Amino acid sequence: MNQNQNPVEDERAWLQRVLTRDIPMGGAMELEVVRVNRDGVVLELPLEANINDKGTAFGGSLASAMILAGWSIPRLLLRRAGLTADLVIGRCETRFLTPVCTAFQACCSWPGPAQVAEFHRKFTDRGRAGLDLHAEIRVDSQVAATLAARYAALGEKR
Amino acid sequence: MNQNQNPVEDERAWLQRVLTRDIPMGGAMELEVVRVNRDGVVLELPLEANINDKGTAFGGSLASAMILAGWSIPRLLLRRAGLTADLVIGRCETRFLTPVCTAFQACCSWPGPAQVAEFHRKFTDRGRAGLDLHAEIRVDSQVAATLAARYAALGEKR
Repeated sequence: MNQNQNPVEDERAWLQRVLTRDIPMGGAMELEVVRVNRDGVVLELPLEANINDKGTAFGGSLASAMILAGWSIPRLLLRRAGLTADLVIGRCETRFLTPVCTAFQACCSWPGPAQVAEFHRKFTDRGRAGLDLHAEIRVDSQVAATLAARYAALGEKR
Repeated sequence: MNQNQNPVEDERAWLQRVLTRDIPMGGAMELEVVRVNRDGVVLELPLEANINDKGTAFGGSLASAMILAGWSIPRLLLRRAGLTADLVIGRCETRFLTPVCTAFQACCSWPGPAQVAEFHRKFTDRGRAGLDLHAEIRVDSQVAATLAARYAALGEKR
């Protein structure tokens, strides 16, 4: 991973554009990509745009933010490898642990090197590859919701 | 269930307000409550507000629409029974079966009478009650995504 400041800022700005302009709901949620670094991806969202009838964060916004945090990981892996692919979510399991009463973060870590190598190898060999990821909603250091999701990168031959 | 036209229209208008004003993300998704009848609840959403980078419906919008279709069922059950409660989603499992390339519907059916009776009984006895529901995304008659969710009604004593 390039630890140079500019490329990482480029990635952050690129991801911000994809998540809020190519996916307008990310814009409506007022999502901000706050960090792309060696730990993973961190998105931040305000409560107000994502509020529900109880004055807490809407479950659909929490799920969407985690889906996007997870999706960002293979999206960036593909971009770094110069690979063109559609990247879709196949399924996910979401747990809502505690109400969210303030702005919140959606976070996803990079998978281990073996999982990344397998993802690249399968995609190169078969034109498609899956990746299982865990994302979470954090408020300060507390985990308020979790997502276990399966993503699939689909090359042109399918 | 009241089969009179006016009360049902009242319910539809009330639900439309809750899902798009009390939950602004429903408004951003341009969700419309098209039907509340003896079969269940049907929401309709346009592709454009919910599009993703691939020109199909964003998975987070599909998940959110199903979460709201499901949530509407216990919300209406509580309203019909004159019960005041917070209604939250505890967990859900979502499957994305096929890309959605047009406007889509999110649908949820009423549970059977025994499940409704149990929901009311538990809520009255304990001040809280859970309800397991299945919702789905339909495009024409095809099911494009499914949601299995657990909702909980929480009374004042908790």
